[in-house]
Amino acid sequence: MAEIWFTEKQLSEGGRSNVSLGLRVKSILHRETSQFQELLVIDTYEYGRALLLDGVIQVTQADEFVYHEMISHVPLFTHPRPERVLIVGGGDGGTVREVLKHPAVRQIDLCELDERVCAVSREYLPEIGAGLADSRVNLRYGDGVAYVAGLTEAYDVIIVDAPDPEGPAVGLFAGEFYRNVLRALKSGGLFAAQSESPWHNRAMLRQIYRSVAGVFPVARVYLAHIPTYQSGMWSFILGSKEHDPLAVRLPAPPSGLMRYYTPEVHRAAFVLPQFVADLLRE
Amino acid sequence: MAEIWFTEKQLSEGGRSNVSLGLRVKSILHRETSQFQELLVIDTYEYGRALLLDGVIQVTQADEFVYHEMISHVPLFTHPRPERVLIVGGGDGGTVREVLKHPAVRQIDLCELDERVCAVSREYLPEIGAGLADSRVNLRYGDGVAYVAGLTEAYDVIIVDAPDPEGPAVGLFAGEFYRNVLRALKSGGLFAAQSESPWHNRAMLRQIYRSVAGVFPVARVYLAHIPTYQSGMWSFILGSKEHDPLAVRLPAPPSGLMRYYTPEVHRAAFVLPQFVADLLRE
Repeated sequence: MAEIWFTEKQLSEGGRSNVSLGLRVKSILHRETSQFQELLVIDTYEYGRALLLDGVIQVTQADEFVYHEMISHVPLFTHPRPERVLIVGGGDGGTVREVLKHPAVRQIDLCELDERVCAVSREYLPEIGAGLADSRVNLRYGDGVAYVAGLTEAYDVIIVDAPDPEGPAVGLFAGEFYRNVLRALKSGGLFAAQSESPWHNRAMLRQIYRSVAGVFPVARVYLAHIPTYQSGMWSFILGSKEHDPLAVRLPAPPSGLMRYYTPEVHRAAFVLPQFVADLLRE
Repeated sequence: MAEIWFTEKQLSEGGRSNVSLGLRVKSILHRETSQFQELLVIDTYEYGRALLLDGVIQVTQADEFVYHEMISHVPLFTHPRPERVLIVGGGDGGTVREVLKHPAVRQIDLCELDERVCAVSREYLPEIGAGLADSRVNLRYGDGVAYVAGLTEAYDVIIVDAPDPEGPAVGLFAGEFYRNVLRALKSGGLFAAQSESPWHNRAMLRQIYRSVAGVFPVARVYLAHIPTYQSGMWSFILGSKEHDPLAVRLPAPPSGLMRYYTPEVHRAAFVLPQFVADLLRE
Protein backbone atom coordinates (compact mmCIF):
# COMPACT_ATOMS: atom_id res chain seq x y z
CA MET A 1 0.00 0.00 0.00
CA ALA A 2 1.31 3.44 -0.88
CA GLU A 3 2.45 5.26 2.26
CA ILE A 4 1.81 8.93 3.12
CA TRP A 5 4.20 10.50 5.63
CA PHE A 6 4.30 13.85 7.41
CA THR A 7 7.85 14.99 8.21
CA GLU A 8 8.63 17.70 10.74
CA LYS A 9 12.07 19.20 10.27
CA GLN A 10 12.85 20.11 13.85
CA LEU A 11 14.62 23.35 14.68
CA SER A 12 18.00 22.99 16.35
CA GLU A 13 20.35 25.47 17.96
CA GLY A 14 21.10 28.29 15.55
CA GLY A 15 17.85 27.89 13.64
CA ARG A 16 19.00 25.04 11.39
CA SER A 17 17.00 21.87 10.79
CA ASN A 18 19.22 18.81 11.11
CA VAL A 19 16.79 16.31 12.63
CA SER A 20 13.32 15.27 11.53
CA LEU A 21 10.44 13.27 12.94
CA GLY A 22 8.23 11.41 10.49
CA LEU A 23 4.73 10.10 11.18
CA ARG A 24 2.87 7.83 8.79
CA VAL A 25 -0.45 9.47 7.94
CA LYS A 26 -3.90 7.90 7.59
CA SER A 27 -5.69 11.08 6.52
CA ILE A 28 -5.69 14.88 6.56
CA LEU A 29 -8.69 15.97 8.61
CA HIS A 30 -8.49 19.76 8.53
CA ARG A 31 -6.33 22.55 7.21
CA GLU A 32 -6.83 26.31 7.48
CA THR A 33 -4.86 29.52 7.73
CA SER A 34 -6.05 31.71 10.57
CA GLN A 35 -5.10 35.33 11.19
CA PHE A 36 -1.98 34.09 12.97
CA GLN A 37 -0.84 30.72 11.61
CA GLU A 38 -1.55 27.57 9.65
CA LEU A 39 -3.60 24.96 11.55
CA LEU A 40 -3.41 21.34 10.41
CA VAL A 41 -5.05 18.24 11.88
CA ILE A 42 -3.82 14.85 10.64
CA ASP A 43 -4.62 11.31 11.70
CA THR A 44 -1.48 9.18 12.16
CA TYR A 45 -0.97 5.45 12.61
CA GLU A 46 1.27 5.55 15.67
CA TYR A 47 0.13 8.61 17.63
CA GLY A 48 -3.50 9.09 16.57
CA ARG A 49 -4.72 12.56 15.65
CA ALA A 50 -2.21 15.41 15.76
CA LEU A 51 -2.65 19.21 15.78
CA LEU A 52 0.12 21.17 14.06
CA LEU A 53 0.69 24.93 14.05
CA ASP A 54 2.85 26.21 11.18
CA GLY A 55 4.00 22.64 10.60
CA VAL A 56 5.13 21.97 14.20
CA ILE A 57 3.42 19.20 16.20
CA GLN A 58 1.64 20.70 19.24
CA VAL A 59 -0.29 17.70 20.53
CA THR A 60 -1.01 14.12 19.51
CA GLN A 61 -3.71 11.96 21.04
CA ALA A 62 -1.23 9.29 22.10
CA ASP A 63 1.34 11.34 24.01
CA GLU A 64 -0.36 14.66 24.90
CA PHE A 65 -1.10 13.39 28.42
CA VAL A 66 2.59 13.56 29.34
CA TYR A 67 2.97 17.24 28.48
CA HIS A 68 -0.38 18.33 29.91
CA GLU A 69 -0.05 16.39 33.16
CA MET A 70 3.49 17.57 33.80
CA ILE A 71 2.90 21.26 33.01
CA SER A 72 -0.20 21.23 35.27
CA HIS A 73 0.19 18.89 38.21
CA VAL A 74 3.74 19.79 39.19
CA PRO A 75 2.83 23.44 39.90
CA LEU A 76 -0.71 22.73 41.17
CA PHE A 77 0.37 20.07 43.68
CA THR A 78 3.20 22.38 44.81
CA HIS A 79 0.66 25.12 45.72
CA PRO A 80 -1.25 24.38 48.96
CA ARG A 81 -4.58 25.75 47.68
CA PRO A 82 -4.68 26.76 43.99
CA GLU A 83 -8.03 28.55 43.54
CA ARG A 84 -7.41 30.97 40.66
CA VAL A 85 -5.33 29.74 37.72
CA LEU A 86 -4.23 31.52 34.54
CA ILE A 87 -3.21 29.57 31.44
CA VAL A 88 -1.33 31.59 28.83
CA GLY A 89 -1.68 29.84 25.48
CA GLY A 90 -2.98 26.30 25.84
CA GLY A 91 -5.85 26.84 23.39
CA ASP A 92 -6.10 23.11 22.62
CA GLY A 93 -7.58 22.64 26.11
CA GLY A 94 -5.35 19.83 27.38
CA THR A 95 -3.92 21.90 30.23
CA VAL A 96 -7.44 23.05 31.21
CA ARG A 97 -8.52 19.41 31.40
CA GLU A 98 -5.70 18.60 33.85
CA VAL A 99 -6.16 21.74 35.98
CA LEU A 100 -9.87 20.89 36.36
CA LYS A 101 -8.84 17.67 38.16
CA HIS A 102 -7.88 19.80 41.20
CA PRO A 103 -10.95 20.33 43.38
CA ALA A 104 -9.60 23.54 44.96
CA VAL A 105 -9.63 25.30 41.57
CA ARG A 106 -12.56 27.76 41.33
CA GLN A 107 -11.62 29.75 38.25
CA ILE A 108 -9.41 29.19 35.19
CA ASP A 109 -8.73 32.11 32.87
CA LEU A 110 -7.23 31.01 29.55
CA CYS A 111 -5.59 33.65 27.37
CA GLU A 112 -5.08 32.27 23.88
CA LEU A 113 -3.94 34.36 20.92
CA ASP A 114 -5.81 32.43 18.25
CA GLU A 115 -9.43 31.48 18.87
CA ARG A 116 -9.27 29.07 15.92
CA VAL A 117 -6.98 26.79 17.98
CA CYS A 118 -9.75 26.34 20.55
CA ALA A 119 -12.42 25.80 17.90
CA VAL A 120 -10.37 23.27 15.92
CA SER A 121 -9.37 21.36 19.06
CA ARG A 122 -12.97 21.12 20.29
CA GLU A 123 -14.07 19.82 16.90
CA TYR A 124 -11.25 17.39 16.06
CA LEU A 125 -9.71 16.54 19.45
CA PRO A 126 -12.73 16.47 21.79
CA GLU A 127 -11.02 14.45 24.52
CA ILE A 128 -8.43 17.25 24.71
CA GLY A 129 -10.65 20.28 24.04
CA ALA A 130 -13.86 19.41 25.89
CA GLY A 131 -12.78 21.05 29.16
CA LEU A 132 -12.80 24.45 27.46
CA ALA A 133 -16.62 24.45 27.87
CA ASP A 134 -16.47 23.93 31.67
CA SER A 135 -18.28 26.62 33.69
CA ARG A 136 -15.10 27.41 35.68
CA VAL A 137 -13.24 28.37 32.48
CA ASN A 138 -13.15 31.92 31.05
CA LEU A 139 -11.74 32.13 27.54
CA ARG A 140 -10.00 35.35 26.52
CA TYR A 141 -8.60 35.75 23.04
CA GLY A 142 -5.61 38.05 22.79
CA ASP A 143 -1.96 38.65 23.50
CA GLY A 144 -0.84 36.89 26.70
CA VAL A 145 2.17 39.19 27.14
CA ALA A 146 -0.05 42.31 27.21
CA TYR A 147 -2.64 40.64 29.44
CA VAL A 148 -0.10 39.55 32.06
CA ALA A 149 1.53 43.01 32.02
CA GLY A 150 -1.69 44.52 33.34
CA LEU A 151 -2.16 42.18 36.32
CA THR A 152 -1.33 42.57 40.03
CA GLU A 153 -1.67 39.73 42.58
CA ALA A 154 -4.40 38.10 40.54
CA TYR A 155 -3.59 34.36 40.41
CA ASP A 156 -2.34 31.51 42.59
CA VAL A 157 -0.82 29.63 39.66
CA ILE A 158 0.11 30.74 36.13
CA ILE A 159 0.88 28.13 33.46
CA VAL A 160 2.60 29.29 30.29
CA ASP A 161 1.60 26.69 27.72
CA ALA A 162 3.26 28.31 24.72
CA PRO A 163 4.61 27.09 21.39
CA ASP A 164 8.30 27.36 20.53
CA PRO A 165 9.87 30.82 20.90
CA GLU A 166 9.34 31.82 17.27
CA GLY A 167 7.08 34.56 15.93
CA PRO A 168 4.19 35.58 18.21
CA ALA A 169 5.38 33.50 21.20
CA VAL A 170 8.81 35.17 21.54
CA GLY A 171 7.57 37.61 24.19
CA LEU A 172 6.60 34.71 26.47
CA PHE A 173 10.27 33.79 26.94
CA ALA A 174 11.65 37.27 27.85
CA GLY A 175 12.91 38.56 31.20
CA GLU A 176 10.30 41.33 31.29
CA PHE A 177 7.52 38.76 30.93
CA TYR A 178 8.78 36.80 33.95
CA ARG A 179 8.84 40.01 36.06
CA ASN A 180 5.24 40.64 35.07
CA VAL A 181 4.32 37.03 35.94
CA LEU A 182 5.82 37.56 39.41
CA ARG A 183 3.68 40.66 39.94
CA ALA A 184 0.59 38.89 38.59
CA LEU A 185 0.88 36.16 41.24
CA LYS A 186 -0.75 36.34 44.65
CA SER A 187 1.27 35.78 47.81
CA GLY A 188 2.51 32.17 47.76
CA GLY A 189 1.95 32.00 44.00
CA LEU A 190 4.02 30.14 41.44
CA PHE A 191 4.24 29.53 37.70
CA ALA A 192 5.37 26.84 35.28
CA ALA A 193 6.27 27.00 31.60
CA GLN A 194 7.60 24.70 28.94
CA SER A 195 11.27 25.46 28.30
CA GLU A 196 12.27 23.44 25.20
CA SER A 197 14.66 20.50 24.69
CA PRO A 198 17.94 20.20 26.62
CA TRP A 199 19.39 18.50 23.53
CA HIS A 200 18.35 20.77 20.68
CA ASN A 201 17.72 24.11 22.42
CA ARG A 202 20.50 24.34 25.01
CA ALA A 203 21.05 28.08 24.81
CA MET A 204 17.32 28.79 25.04
CA LEU A 205 16.87 26.58 28.12
CA ARG A 206 19.87 28.18 29.82
CA GLN A 207 18.54 31.67 29.04
CA ILE A 208 15.05 30.85 30.36
CA TYR A 209 16.48 29.34 33.56
CA ARG A 210 18.72 32.34 34.19
CA SER A 211 15.90 34.81 33.57
CA VAL A 212 13.52 33.01 35.92
CA ALA A 213 16.20 32.48 38.58
CA GLY A 214 16.90 36.22 38.44
CA VAL A 215 13.26 37.05 39.19
CA PHE A 216 11.87 34.27 41.46
CA PRO A 217 13.15 33.17 44.90
CA VAL A 218 12.68 29.52 43.82
CA ALA A 219 13.54 28.47 40.23
CA ARG A 220 13.79 24.82 39.23
CA VAL A 221 13.96 22.88 35.95
CA TYR A 222 12.19 19.54 35.54
CA LEU A 223 11.98 16.99 32.73
CA ALA A 224 9.56 14.61 31.02
CA HIS A 225 9.71 12.12 28.12
CA ILE A 226 7.54 13.35 25.22
CA PRO A 227 8.12 11.26 22.05
CA THR A 228 6.75 13.72 19.47
CA TYR A 229 8.70 16.73 20.79
CA GLN A 230 12.29 17.32 19.68
CA SER A 231 14.72 14.71 21.08
CA GLY A 232 11.95 13.17 23.24
CA MET A 233 13.38 14.91 26.32
CA TRP A 234 11.42 18.00 27.25
CA SER A 235 12.09 20.57 29.96
CA PHE A 236 9.87 22.76 32.10
CA ILE A 237 10.69 25.67 34.39
CA LEU A 238 8.97 26.34 37.70
CA GLY A 239 9.28 29.77 39.36
CA SER A 240 7.81 30.25 42.81
CA LYS A 241 7.48 33.05 45.35
CA GLU A 242 7.72 30.73 48.34
CA HIS A 243 6.75 27.06 47.91
CA ASP A 244 9.51 24.70 46.78
CA PRO A 245 8.26 21.79 44.62
CA LEU A 246 10.86 19.55 46.28
CA ALA A 247 10.02 20.54 49.87
CA VAL A 248 6.23 20.38 49.86
CA ARG A 249 4.33 17.34 51.11
CA LEU A 250 2.57 15.90 48.06
CA PRO A 251 -0.89 14.43 48.52
CA ALA A 252 -1.63 11.05 46.92
CA PRO A 253 -3.57 12.01 43.79
CA PRO A 254 -6.91 10.30 43.10
CA SER A 255 -6.29 6.87 41.59
CA GLY A 256 -6.89 6.36 37.87
CA LEU A 257 -6.98 10.06 36.93
CA MET A 258 -3.39 10.33 35.68
CA ARG A 259 -1.29 8.30 33.29
CA TYR A 260 2.18 9.85 33.80
CA TYR A 261 2.19 11.93 37.00
CA THR A 262 2.62 10.36 40.42
CA PRO A 263 4.11 12.01 43.55
CA GLU A 264 7.28 9.96 42.92
CA VAL A 265 7.42 11.11 39.27
CA HIS A 266 7.02 14.71 40.52
CA ARG A 267 10.18 14.40 42.62
CA ALA A 268 12.14 12.33 40.09
CA ALA A 269 11.42 14.85 37.30
CA PHE A 270 13.64 17.40 39.09
CA VAL A 271 16.62 15.01 39.17
CA LEU A 272 18.66 16.29 36.24
CA PRO A 273 21.17 14.19 34.30
CA GLN A 274 24.67 15.57 34.81
CA PHE A 275 24.85 17.24 31.37
CA VAL A 276 21.59 19.13 31.98
CA ALA A 277 22.72 20.30 35.43
CA ASP A 278 26.02 21.37 33.85
CA LEU A 279 24.37 23.35 31.06
CA LEU A 280 22.30 25.33 33.59
CA ARG A 281 25.51 26.24 35.44
CA GLU A 282 27.56 27.16 32.37
CA MET B 1 22.71 23.87 -0.40
CA ALA B 2 21.30 20.49 -1.36
CA GLU B 3 20.54 18.45 1.73
CA ILE B 4 21.24 14.72 2.24
CA TRP B 5 19.14 12.95 4.87
CA PHE B 6 19.24 9.48 6.39
CA THR B 7 15.81 8.28 7.50
CA GLU B 8 15.30 5.36 9.89
CA LYS B 9 11.82 3.89 9.70
CA GLN B 10 11.45 2.70 13.27
CA LEU B 11 9.76 -0.61 14.03
CA SER B 12 6.59 -0.38 16.10
CA GLU B 13 4.45 -3.02 17.79
CA GLY B 14 3.43 -5.63 15.27
CA GLY B 15 6.43 -5.06 13.02
CA ARG B 16 5.04 -2.06 11.16
CA SER B 17 6.98 1.16 10.56
CA ASN B 18 4.82 4.17 11.39
CA VAL B 19 7.42 6.56 12.81
CA SER B 20 10.75 7.70 11.38
CA LEU B 21 13.78 9.59 12.62
CA GLY B 22 15.69 11.67 10.09
CA LEU B 23 19.26 12.91 10.47
CA ARG B 24 20.86 15.37 8.06
CA VAL B 25 24.05 13.81 6.71
CA LYS B 26 27.44 15.41 6.09
CA SER B 27 29.06 12.33 4.59
CA ILE B 28 29.06 8.56 4.33
CA LEU B 29 32.27 7.31 5.94
CA HIS B 30 32.03 3.55 5.60
CA ARG B 31 29.73 0.85 4.32
CA GLU B 32 30.25 -2.91 4.25
CA THR B 33 28.30 -6.12 4.49
CA SER B 34 29.80 -8.53 7.00
CA GLN B 35 28.93 -12.18 7.44
CA PHE B 36 26.03 -11.11 9.67
CA GLN B 37 24.75 -7.65 8.71
CA GLU B 38 25.25 -4.35 6.91
CA LEU B 39 27.50 -1.90 8.76
CA LEU B 40 27.20 1.80 7.93
CA VAL B 41 29.02 4.79 9.43
CA ILE B 42 27.67 8.25 8.60
CA ASP B 43 28.59 11.71 9.82
CA THR B 44 25.55 13.78 10.79
CA TYR B 45 25.10 17.48 11.58
CA GLU B 46 23.22 17.13 14.86
CA TYR B 47 24.56 13.93 16.45
CA GLY B 48 28.05 13.55 14.95
CA ARG B 49 29.14 10.17 13.64
CA ALA B 50 26.66 7.29 13.82
CA LEU B 51 27.07 3.53 13.49
CA LEU B 52 24.11 1.68 11.95
CA LEU B 53 23.53 -2.07 11.72
CA ASP B 54 21.06 -3.13 9.03
CA GLY B 55 19.85 0.47 8.86
CA VAL B 56 19.14 0.84 12.60
CA ILE B 57 21.08 3.45 14.59
CA GLN B 58 23.20 1.75 17.29
CA VAL B 59 25.27 4.67 18.58
CA THR B 60 25.89 8.29 17.75
CA GLN B 61 28.76 10.36 19.11
CA ALA B 62 26.41 12.93 20.66
CA ASP B 63 24.08 10.73 22.70
CA GLU B 64 25.84 7.35 23.14
CA PHE B 65 27.00 8.36 26.61
CA VAL B 66 23.45 8.09 27.95
CA TYR B 67 22.95 4.49 26.86
CA HIS B 68 26.43 3.31 27.80
CA GLU B 69 26.49 5.00 31.21
CA MET B 70 23.04 3.75 32.16
CA ILE B 71 23.50 0.14 31.03
CA SER B 72 26.86 0.01 32.90
CA HIS B 73 26.82 2.12 36.04
CA VAL B 74 23.40 1.13 37.35
CA PRO B 75 24.36 -2.55 37.68
CA LEU B 76 28.02 -1.92 38.58
CA PHE B 77 27.25 0.53 41.40
CA THR B 78 24.57 -1.88 42.66
CA HIS B 79 27.18 -4.66 43.06
CA PRO B 80 29.46 -4.16 46.12
CA ARG B 81 32.61 -5.43 44.36
CA PRO B 82 32.28 -6.14 40.62
CA GLU B 83 35.54 -7.87 39.66
CA ARG B 84 34.58 -10.07 36.70
CA VAL B 85 32.20 -8.62 34.11
CA LEU B 86 30.74 -10.17 30.95
CA ILE B 87 29.38 -8.00 28.16
CA VAL B 88 27.20 -9.83 25.62
CA GLY B 89 27.14 -7.82 22.40
CA GLY B 90 28.49 -4.30 22.86
CA GLY B 91 31.07 -4.64 20.09
CA ASP B 92 31.25 -0.87 19.58
CA GLY B 93 33.12 -0.65 22.89
CA GLY B 94 31.04 2.03 24.62
CA THR B 95 29.96 -0.25 27.45
CA VAL B 96 33.56 -1.46 27.92
CA ARG B 97 34.66 2.17 28.26
CA GLU B 98 32.17 2.77 31.07
CA VAL B 99 32.86 -0.52 32.89
CA LEU B 100 36.58 0.33 32.91
CA LYS B 101 35.77 3.38 35.05
CA HIS B 102 35.17 1.02 38.01
CA PRO B 103 38.47 0.35 39.78
CA ALA B 104 37.29 -2.99 41.24
CA VAL B 105 36.94 -4.48 37.74
CA ARG B 106 39.79 -6.90 37.01
CA GLN B 107 38.49 -8.66 33.91
CA ILE B 108 35.97 -7.87 31.19
CA ASP B 109 35.00 -10.60 28.74
CA LEU B 110 33.15 -9.29 25.71
CA CYS B 111 31.27 -11.75 23.53
CA GLU B 112 30.34 -10.10 20.23
CA LEU B 113 28.86 -11.97 17.29
CA ASP B 114 30.42 -9.81 14.58
CA GLU B 115 34.10 -8.92 14.84
CA ARG B 116 33.61 -6.29 12.13
CA VAL B 117 31.58 -4.19 14.60
CA CYS B 118 34.64 -3.94 16.86
CA ALA B 119 36.98 -3.17 13.97
CA VAL B 120 34.74 -0.50 12.44
CA SER B 121 34.11 1.16 15.81
CA ARG B 122 37.83 1.33 16.63
CA GLU B 123 38.54 2.89 13.25
CA TYR B 124 35.66 5.36 12.92
CA LEU B 125 34.51 5.94 16.52
CA PRO B 126 37.77 5.84 18.51
CA GLU B 127 36.37 7.65 21.56
CA ILE B 128 33.83 4.81 21.82
CA GLY B 129 35.95 1.86 20.69
CA ALA B 130 39.35 2.62 22.22
CA GLY B 131 38.65 0.72 25.46
CA LEU B 132 38.48 -2.54 23.50
CA ALA B 133 42.28 -2.53 23.49
CA ASP B 134 42.58 -2.33 27.30
CA SER B 135 44.60 -5.15 28.89
CA ARG B 136 41.68 -6.10 31.16
CA VAL B 137 39.45 -6.83 28.12
CA ASN B 138 39.19 -10.26 26.45
CA LEU B 139 37.39 -10.20 23.11
CA ARG B 140 35.53 -13.35 22.06
CA TYR B 141 33.74 -13.49 18.75
CA GLY B 142 30.73 -15.78 18.68
CA ASP B 143 27.18 -16.43 19.75
CA GLY B 144 26.43 -14.94 23.18
CA VAL B 145 23.51 -17.29 23.78
CA ALA B 146 25.69 -20.39 23.37
CA TYR B 147 28.55 -18.87 25.39
CA VAL B 148 26.33 -18.02 28.36
CA ALA B 149 24.68 -21.46 28.24
CA GLY B 150 28.05 -23.05 29.07
CA LEU B 151 28.85 -20.96 32.14
CA THR B 152 28.45 -21.62 35.88
CA GLU B 153 29.07 -18.98 38.58
CA ALA B 154 31.57 -17.18 36.37
CA TYR B 155 30.76 -13.46 36.61
CA ASP B 156 29.78 -10.79 39.14
CA VAL B 157 27.94 -8.69 36.56
CA ILE B 158 26.61 -9.54 33.09
CA ILE B 159 25.55 -6.75 30.73
CA VAL B 160 23.46 -7.66 27.69
CA ASP B 161 24.16 -4.86 25.22
CA ALA B 162 22.17 -6.27 22.32
CA PRO B 163 20.46 -4.80 19.27
CA ASP B 164 16.66 -5.01 18.82
CA PRO B 165 15.16 -8.51 19.11
CA GLU B 166 15.26 -9.23 15.37
CA GLY B 167 17.34 -11.83 13.59
CA PRO B 168 20.46 -13.03 15.44
CA ALA B 169 19.64 -11.19 18.69
CA VAL B 170 16.25 -12.89 19.31
CA GLY B 171 17.79 -15.54 21.61
CA LEU B 172 19.04 -12.80 23.97
CA PHE B 173 15.44 -11.95 24.93
CA ALA B 174 14.16 -15.48 25.72
CA GLY B 175 13.30 -17.02 29.08
CA GLU B 176 15.89 -19.79 28.67
CA PHE B 177 18.61 -17.19 28.18
CA TYR B 178 17.73 -15.47 31.47
CA ARG B 179 17.88 -18.81 33.32
CA ASN B 180 21.34 -19.35 31.87
CA VAL B 181 22.37 -15.83 32.91
CA LEU B 182 21.28 -16.62 36.47
CA ARG B 183 23.45 -19.75 36.51
CA ALA B 184 26.38 -17.85 34.97
CA LEU B 185 26.39 -15.34 37.82
CA LYS B 186 28.41 -15.76 41.00
CA SER B 187 26.77 -15.46 44.40
CA GLY B 188 25.54 -11.86 44.77
CA GLY B 189 25.67 -11.38 41.00
CA LEU B 190 23.33 -9.35 38.84
CA PHE B 191 22.69 -8.47 35.21
CA ALA B 192 21.30 -5.61 33.15
CA ALA B 193 19.98 -5.50 29.59
CA GLN B 194 18.36 -2.99 27.26
CA SER B 195 14.64 -3.74 27.00
CA GLU B 196 13.30 -1.50 24.21
CA SER B 197 10.89 1.47 24.19
CA PRO B 198 7.85 1.60 26.50
CA TRP B 199 6.06 3.54 23.73
CA HIS B 200 6.76 1.51 20.61
CA ASN B 201 7.56 -1.96 22.02
CA ARG B 202 5.10 -2.39 24.89
CA ALA B 203 4.51 -6.12 24.47
CA MET B 204 8.26 -6.83 24.23
CA LEU B 205 9.08 -4.85 27.38
CA ARG B 206 6.27 -6.61 29.29
CA GLN B 207 7.49 -10.01 28.11
CA ILE B 208 11.11 -9.29 29.07
CA TYR B 209 10.06 -8.02 32.51
CA ARG B 210 7.90 -11.07 33.18
CA SER B 211 10.61 -13.48 32.05
CA VAL B 212 13.26 -11.85 34.24
CA ALA B 213 10.89 -11.54 37.23
CA GLY B 214 10.17 -15.27 36.88
CA VAL B 215 13.87 -16.13 37.15
CA PHE B 216 15.52 -13.53 39.44
CA PRO B 217 14.64 -12.70 43.07
CA VAL B 218 15.00 -8.97 42.24
CA ALA B 219 13.73 -7.65 38.86
CA ARG B 220 13.38 -3.93 38.17
CA VAL B 221 12.87 -1.75 35.07
CA TYR B 222 14.58 1.62 34.72
CA LEU B 223 14.48 4.38 32.10
CA ALA B 224 16.70 6.89 30.31
CA HIS B 225 16.24 9.59 27.66
CA ILE B 226 18.06 8.59 24.44
CA PRO B 227 17.13 10.91 21.53
CA THR B 228 18.19 8.66 18.63
CA TYR B 229 16.38 5.55 19.91
CA GLN B 230 12.68 5.05 19.19
CA SER B 231 10.46 7.52 21.06
CA GLY B 232 13.45 8.92 22.99
CA MET B 233 12.36 6.92 26.07
CA TRP B 234 14.41 3.78 26.54
CA SER B 235 14.03 1.01 29.11
CA PHE B 236 16.49 -1.33 30.81
CA ILE B 237 15.92 -4.40 32.96
CA LEU B 238 18.01 -5.31 35.99
CA GLY B 239 17.86 -8.84 37.41
CA SER B 240 19.71 -9.59 40.63
CA LYS B 241 20.33 -12.58 42.89
CA GLU B 242 20.44 -10.49 46.04
CA HIS B 243 21.36 -6.80 45.79
CA ASP B 244 18.50 -4.37 45.15
CA PRO B 245 19.51 -1.30 43.09
CA LEU B 246 17.12 0.81 45.20
CA ALA B 247 18.34 -0.43 48.58
CA VAL B 248 22.13 -0.26 48.16
CA ARG B 249 24.17 2.66 49.42
CA LEU B 250 25.59 4.34 46.30
CA PRO B 251 29.08 5.80 46.48
CA ALA B 252 29.64 9.28 45.06
CA PRO B 253 31.23 8.58 41.68
CA PRO B 254 34.45 10.36 40.74
CA SER B 255 33.66 13.89 39.58
CA GLY B 256 33.85 14.68 35.86
CA LEU B 257 33.82 11.06 34.63
CA MET B 258 30.12 10.86 33.77
CA ARG B 259 27.76 13.05 31.80
CA TYR B 260 24.37 11.45 32.58
CA TYR B 261 24.70 9.13 35.61
CA THR B 262 24.68 10.44 39.16
CA PRO B 263 23.55 8.56 42.30
CA GLU B 264 20.34 10.63 42.20
CA VAL B 265 19.79 9.76 38.51
CA HIS B 266 20.32 6.08 39.44
CA ARG B 267 17.40 6.20 41.88
CA ALA B 268 15.17 8.46 39.76
CA ALA B 269 15.56 6.17 36.73
CA PHE B 270 13.55 3.48 38.57
CA VAL B 271 10.61 5.84 39.16
CA LEU B 272 8.24 4.78 36.39
CA PRO B 273 5.54 7.00 34.91
CA GLN B 274 2.11 5.58 35.72
CA PHE B 275 1.53 4.16 32.21
CA VAL B 276 4.84 2.25 32.31
CA ALA B 277 4.09 0.81 35.76
CA ASP B 278 0.63 -0.15 34.48
CA LEU B 279 1.95 -1.90 31.38
CA LEU B 280 4.28 -4.06 33.52
CA ARG B 281 1.29 -5.12 35.64
CA GLU B 282 -1.10 -5.82 32.75
